[in-house]
Amino acid sequence: MKSKLLIKNVTLNGAISDIYIVDGIITKIGSSLPQGRAELLEGRGMAVIPGFVNMHTHSPMTLMRGVGEGLSLTEWLNDRIWPLEKRLDEEAIYWGTKLAILEMFKSGTTTFNDQYWQESVSARAAAEMGIRSFHSFVIMDYRDKELYDQIVESAQKAYKESKKWSSLNHFTIGIHSAYSVSEDMIIWGCKFAQENNLLVHMHLSETERENFKSIREHSYTPTHYLEDLRVLESNVIAAHSLWVDDYDIEILAKRGVKVVHNVNSNLKLGSGFQFNYNEMRDAGVLVTLGTDGCASSNNLDMLEAMKTAALLQKGWRRDPKALPQNELIDIATLNGAKALGINSGVIEEGALADLSLVDTDNLHFTPNFDFLSNLIFSANSSSINSVICNGKVVMHDRYVEGEEEILSNVRRVVKRVFNDIKF
Amino acid sequence: MKSKLLIKNVTLNGAISDIYIVDGIITKIGSSLPQGRAELLEGRGMAVIPGFVNMHTHSPMTLMRGVGEGLSLTEWLNDRIWPLEKRLDEEAIYWGTKLAILEMFKSGTTTFNDQYWQESVSARAAAEMGIRSFHSFVIMDYRDKELYDQIVESAQKAYKESKKWSSLNHFTIGIHSAYSVSEDMIIWGCKFAQENNLLVHMHLSETERENFKSIREHSYTPTHYLEDLRVLESNVIAAHSLWVDDYDIEILAKRGVKVVHNVNSNLKLGSGFQFNYNEMRDAGVLVTLGTDGCASSNNLDMLEAMKTAALLQKGWRRDPKALPQNELIDIATLNGAKALGINSGVIEEGALADLSLVDTDNLHFTPNFDFLSNLIFSANSSSINSVICNGKVVMHDRYVEGEEEILSNVRRVVKRVFNDIKF
Repeated sequence: MKSKLLIKNVTLNGAISDIYIVDGIITKIGSSLPQGRAELLEGRGMAVIPGFVNMHTHSPMTLMRGVGEGLSLTEWLNDRIWPLEKRLDEEAIYWGTKLAILEMFKSGTTTFNDQYWQESVSARAAAEMGIRSFHSFVIMDYRDKELYDQIVESAQKAYKESKKWSSLNHFTIGIHSAYSVSEDMIIWGCKFAQENNLLVHMHLSETERENFKSIREHSYTPTHYLEDLRVLESNVIAAHSLWVDDYDIEILAKRGVKVVHNVNSNLKLGSGFQFNYNEMRDAGVLVTLGTDGCASSNNLDMLEAMKTAALLQKGWRRDPKALPQNELIDIATLNGAKALGINSGVIEEGALADLSLVDTDNLHFTPNFDFLSNLIFSANSSSINSVICNGKVVMHDRYVEGEEEILSNVRRVVKRVFNDIKF
Repeated sequence: MKSKLLIKNVTLNGAISDIYIVDGIITKIGSSLPQGRAELLEGRGMAVIPGFVNMHTHSPMTLMRGVGEGLSLTEWLNDRIWPLEKRLDEEAIYWGTKLAILEMFKSGTTTFNDQYWQESVSARAAAEMGIRSFHSFVIMDYRDKELYDQIVESAQKAYKESKKWSSLNHFTIGIHSAYSVSEDMIIWGCKFAQENNLLVHMHLSETERENFKSIREHSYTPTHYLEDLRVLESNVIAAHSLWVDDYDIEILAKRGVKVVHNVNSNLKLGSGFQFNYNEMRDAGVLVTLGTDGCASSNNLDMLEAMKTAALLQKGWRRDPKALPQNELIDIATLNGAKALGINSGVIEEGALADLSLVDTDNLHFTPNFDFLSNLIFSANSSSINSVICNGKVVMHDRYVEGEEEILSNVRRVVKRVFNDIKF
């Protein structure tokens, strides 16, 4: 039997509308649509927006939220994050991912692009919660060529197994970065992805130090180096890309590489602030938005990321017109959907029903001269009232089924795996 | 009869405590304190923090929230804000201020330092809602010397009338800025403030353009110019101070001038980003935090301001250790209290009972390795559960008495005063 949902009386682009959804697809937008046998969701007093697409995160890192504040990047990684990560077993990753998804629903995200170990565990958690997701098999050999055969075999096996995943959850190839993966491995991973029509998810030019290292070793920036390896194609999603120069941007544009801006993480880790949004946009690079993992940027709130991204562009360019809100909302929704090859990020007949209802009957939207301005600059995610993913109501009136169970299991698991560590 | 409040089982600096409050003062902190005849507030599952002190805002500008997005600063002021402001009558200012205070309570602010026309109307709104506040009589003569006598008379009259205000609400002298007020007027205002033991609240070096103008006219930066007028004393609160140089900072430190960092407003209006926090702190300048008015920074959320301030310092300095969270919490609470000469910002016996209870039983505080990190970087203001101002519970379980009335009156008033304007 087909699954049907009718959202009544919701505000869409300033007008009151009904939205009819069949099997995860918006089939009709109009007024006074008949309910038939559809489930009903009342939208009075609420505006509907596309669900956010979080284009770069490491979901189980929710478990390390707030660990190592005030440390330098090197201390943070060496003394805290890496030793803790080694302790994360399957159960920890499962509940850490569920906590991440709970947080995403609570802040209006309906799709995320993930990179973490044991991707099949995260994919299972995602399937159970009904979120659309992309999970990388992480290739990171620390440039140890001895690992080549083993990684190839594991990747092939993981890909084969991923074919059993729910249709909402997708397998991608993660190339951790140009500095942490050996050349042959990068080439193999990208070729494998192309042959199997998979996305590639990598970190690229996150820090200036990474660029210096690349120039010292390869005479080129990381982007130029990867271009030289002939691996940059339109299936590549490059996270951060904070330290790309004009020539790098030209390459990214020519190859159709998608970029993920992770503003809060870049600021918090002191990586830098001058993200070249205008330059990328003007060159034709598709720019998307991500939160990065909770260990570095502490939450998975795309509304916060949008706000910081806009404030920062306006601030460092000293131009109040920089990164206008109509571009910003696309960056957080439509552009991510395009990068992932899914038909969301727009609310129209035929599109995926990945949506959020925003409660506008509160002080953040009072007065309400400009809904988008209020959403981005005045409100916070507590105004996200309900979330629909693939046509299913995954959060209703701010309640996600099983949320207490997730919090209590996370607390139990954290206690178990990090028990003997002094923070 | 004395007003008494007992907060039970709240987490204070990691330990479960009770807090006993008599007539607005914390009289006892301990465990299992007897309730006696005190009102009871259950604090289980919550952490107590000092109420935030919003050191620079223009409260009635809530009425212009989201007006003029995407305009340049000049268009924004000339075409939108100033024409709209002329329409704000007493009723509009009254409800606009109440909306601001509602928003402040909802985000944990217990004291604000305001600068707006008709300060007595805002002070009345503040008294009715039970918030601690400071309101400037605004001196802005656009350097028209003809207005001198009239302003002196009005200021004296306003000060006299302010003596009838509630004891929670304080009168200050607002010198709009060095560029908008004539020399004699600045000198008179500051002298009047000193003679009457009043604070002076001014804008200082908000934009680079303001500095250029000052240097062209006076050969000096605004700070140096004011120093030359001998008006800078420890009763002066300087908002923004984004474009101060080393010599300015030396002057501010020597004179004990307090600075208010308004990070979101500075970024959003494109004023700049390199706020010299380290330099001011090291020179001994007391740095505090503000949101500015809602027309420029869209909300009055001090938690958001804290987060952006920290991210920005770490980002532009490329130093993850910049503006550590223990300094940040003081900037948002204790430093503001010191600047205003009130004994809040600390939770100890003898201090003012201006407090917030933070609900930690939610995903933003899961796991909870580091409460302060979670508060600033993971949570948003929806975790502020209850607010106590001057020993009275002004928000309980996120409900503020009369909040529906405030929203409906603001909507009505906005419709009335801005009715014929196309946005």
